[in-house]
Amino acid sequence: MNGFFVGRSLAELGAGLRSGRWSALFLAERALASIDPGLNAFSHVDAEGARAAARRADEEAGRGAWRGPLHGVPVAVKDLIDVAGLPCGMGSAHFAGNVPERDAACVRLLRAAGAVIVGMTVTHEFAYGSTGDVSVNGPVRNPHDRSRMSGGSSAGSAAAVASGAVPLALGTDTGGSVRIPAALCGVAGFKPPHGVLPVDGVFPLSVSLDHVGVLAGSAEDCRTAYRALRDAADAPGAGAPEGDAPVGDGPRMAWVEGAPVDARVEGVVRAPFKGLAVERLDLAAMWRTFVAIQSAEVADVHVERAERAPELYQPEVLGRVRTAAETPAWRYLRALREREAFAAEVAALLERHDVLVMPAAAIPAPPVGEREGPFGPVPPTLISWTCPWNLLGLPALSVPAGTVDGLPAGVQFVTRAGAEEALFTAARTVRRD
Amino acid sequence: MNGFFVGRSLAELGAGLRSGRWSALFLAERALASIDPGLNAFSHVDAEGARAAARRADEEAGRGAWRGPLHGVPVAVKDLIDVAGLPCGMGSAHFAGNVPERDAACVRLLRAAGAVIVGMTVTHEFAYGSTGDVSVNGPVRNPHDRSRMSGGSSAGSAAAVASGAVPLALGTDTGGSVRIPAALCGVAGFKPPHGVLPVDGVFPLSVSLDHVGVLAGSAEDCRTAYRALRDAADAPGAGAPEGDAPVGDGPRMAWVEGAPVDARVEGVVRAPFKGLAVERLDLAAMWRTFVAIQSAEVADVHVERAERAPELYQPEVLGRVRTAAETPAWRYLRALREREAFAAEVAALLERHDVLVMPAAAIPAPPVGEREGPFGPVPPTLISWTCPWNLLGLPALSVPAGTVDGLPAGVQFVTRAGAEEALFTAARTVRRD
Repeated sequence: MNGFFVGRSLAELGAGLRSGRWSALFLAERALASIDPGLNAFSHVDAEGARAAARRADEEAGRGAWRGPLHGVPVAVKDLIDVAGLPCGMGSAHFAGNVPERDAACVRLLRAAGAVIVGMTVTHEFAYGSTGDVSVNGPVRNPHDRSRMSGGSSAGSAAAVASGAVPLALGTDTGGSVRIPAALCGVAGFKPPHGVLPVDGVFPLSVSLDHVGVLAGSAEDCRTAYRALRDAADAPGAGAPEGDAPVGDGPRMAWVEGAPVDARVEGVVRAPFKGLAVERLDLAAMWRTFVAIQSAEVADVHVERAERAPELYQPEVLGRVRTAAETPAWRYLRALREREAFAAEVAALLERHDVLVMPAAAIPAPPVGEREGPFGPVPPTLISWTCPWNLLGLPALSVPAGTVDGLPAGVQFVTRAGAEEALFTAARTVRRD
Repeated sequence: MNGFFVGRSLAELGAGLRSGRWSALFLAERALASIDPGLNAFSHVDAEGARAAARRADEEAGRGAWRGPLHGVPVAVKDLIDVAGLPCGMGSAHFAGNVPERDAACVRLLRAAGAVIVGMTVTHEFAYGSTGDVSVNGPVRNPHDRSRMSGGSSAGSAAAVASGAVPLALGTDTGGSVRIPAALCGVAGFKPPHGVLPVDGVFPLSVSLDHVGVLAGSAEDCRTAYRALRDAADAPGAGAPEGDAPVGDGPRMAWVEGAPVDARVEGVVRAPFKGLAVERLDLAAMWRTFVAIQSAEVADVHVERAERAPELYQPEVLGRVRTAAETPAWRYLRALREREAFAAEVAALLERHDVLVMPAAAIPAPPVGEREGPFGPVPPTLISWTCPWNLLGLPALSVPAGTVDGLPAGVQFVTRAGAEEALFTAARTVRRD
């Protein structure tokens, strides 16, 4: 929790780089020095690559060629996303020694925006788990309490940002894998609408639910990074500095109920939203639909691998793959229809409200390895508030809202695809960054 | 085989009605008198309804209001298609006593075209079988040899047309259920492109594969009926008499290989096509893809029913439903991708050829109840040449091509959706009707 980047916004870093107070090489060195091996956030650190990229960023800056708000900024990338030349293990013994030759599309965007990649962050094996403590690399530890899990699956990305090793990290989110570890580690996590950030070069978990997302110290930094990546997609290398978003009258918000939540967590995350209208959704039913679709798609990816080399999986993940493979096709067909019905129900809700507000995670970070929680098994409890928005492909943002006995709690904002600016406006209700 | 309508084309019947030689009531009486109970083609005969409809047709004709080539023509409807007021049993004890209140959409088209419904024809239970000998109504018998199966699932529709009880019948075709009994009973059967004739009011077997089709004495009569139904759909009650189709240079045809076929059947059906180019398709692989998709969709329809009242199913169909329910979701997902690949492969083939020609059924009609054939189990053997065109939703026509030891063999024509006119042109290669 004492890494260089704790409390430093992208705006501050950008100003420091532009003013000449810092060089990109200096920031890269601070990142490398801030990595705390005890958290097990990184599966690989690329010190030489980071220094080389930082020197290139400094060289470009020296001739006035600024790529935008990520220029010269150290970032970490989840160990599920191909970075050319760096080991990408998917958190699994199945991919020991795997070194991709090409960058994933989202990594190309990151480089086009001028970011400096310092290393790969530990993922729950194959991103198939919300706890972040099951990986060939071992469990990621929560920077707020090392006996606690980080949440997952983008476990190392959250711990790396929370501990100040980097100001920004890429994650993936299939059922909450960006937002859950963000909430449990006390950082911000943003999942864009489905399909906006490209998934080429990201190892699939469940194709219709997979998203690339960003983790950073604040909602505002998530916004900045997201916009820079989108700009890079539109015009590689031509990202522009971001101004403040217009606030206007502020979005119409509603508080959502529909799944169990720890009373202390609810007290913290709901405090700024006491006066909101309350809407109810059957989040348990949405979870069941989500599981049917995810199971079908996970088994599609893994069934031969689980047959051929079961011993290379972590036992818990192997068990989940085998259960997933038993999902009947008729159940999947019904889940597709259920998804349509939920999409219509939520679309109607989002006619009346701009932003839905709710907890990001039902409980504070449990101890590493714990599987029974107050509302049943921990893994499904952790995704209960997040997976519905993967099911529907809607943009969702998790923001730190305070702590419960020293452990962070996150509040989540959800809106229509394309209206994600409203999420960042809504987040200003919680705290000004 | 000595019913009134044997050898009488729709053109002849229409001319007879228009000239006043016959009345619709006379034809309805001939239909009712031609029904041979020994074939078990009908699950219900509606003598009074047929007479009333015929009288209305005659009354309309008397004031010069002709509805087109089906005006006053007796037709039979498969016992899977709702006809208001007539028992519709799906061939199953599950629907004993079921009497729908509304006509299926295709029946509304039939009535708008002026046809006279004489009764409901026996279906393989829930249309889930290609042999036509498993139904709460008992097996349908082949008019060419009563110890033989009719083929299915539109078993009674084929036997009713072949025996001359009606000149036209509606069937449904999910894997060949119009074309197989047509081939085995020596009549013509046409499955339009997917979605052209509406399936509302037809009990679903497998929604992405289900088609409504027509069975008649000849390809030309299938064409006439199909066009009359389409015209009725476009402008109810305004069907026009059909002229001959233009022949032109004739379609470019290719002979298709790719599944086993009885050598005697091949000799008969291939004789007029000796000079054609030969193309090869992996029909066994297409069958596997078809089965995965069909199984998923069948189980979606039946799983609760099979749980609640298994004893009401015919044992063979219950076994198939239970097996279908075990199809894993991941297998279904792959089948969807395989379907896309086959669609591309066949589309490329149909760039080079207008019409693909092949057997309609691999074997002549086996004995009722027989399940082992020369190429393995009889039910999958019977659909091996037809189900690929349900998988791809392409129009397909089965036409009688001759006999093997007194049992009919059918040749099948397949083309692009929207190009079905070429099928009827191609059929003239076999014989002039």
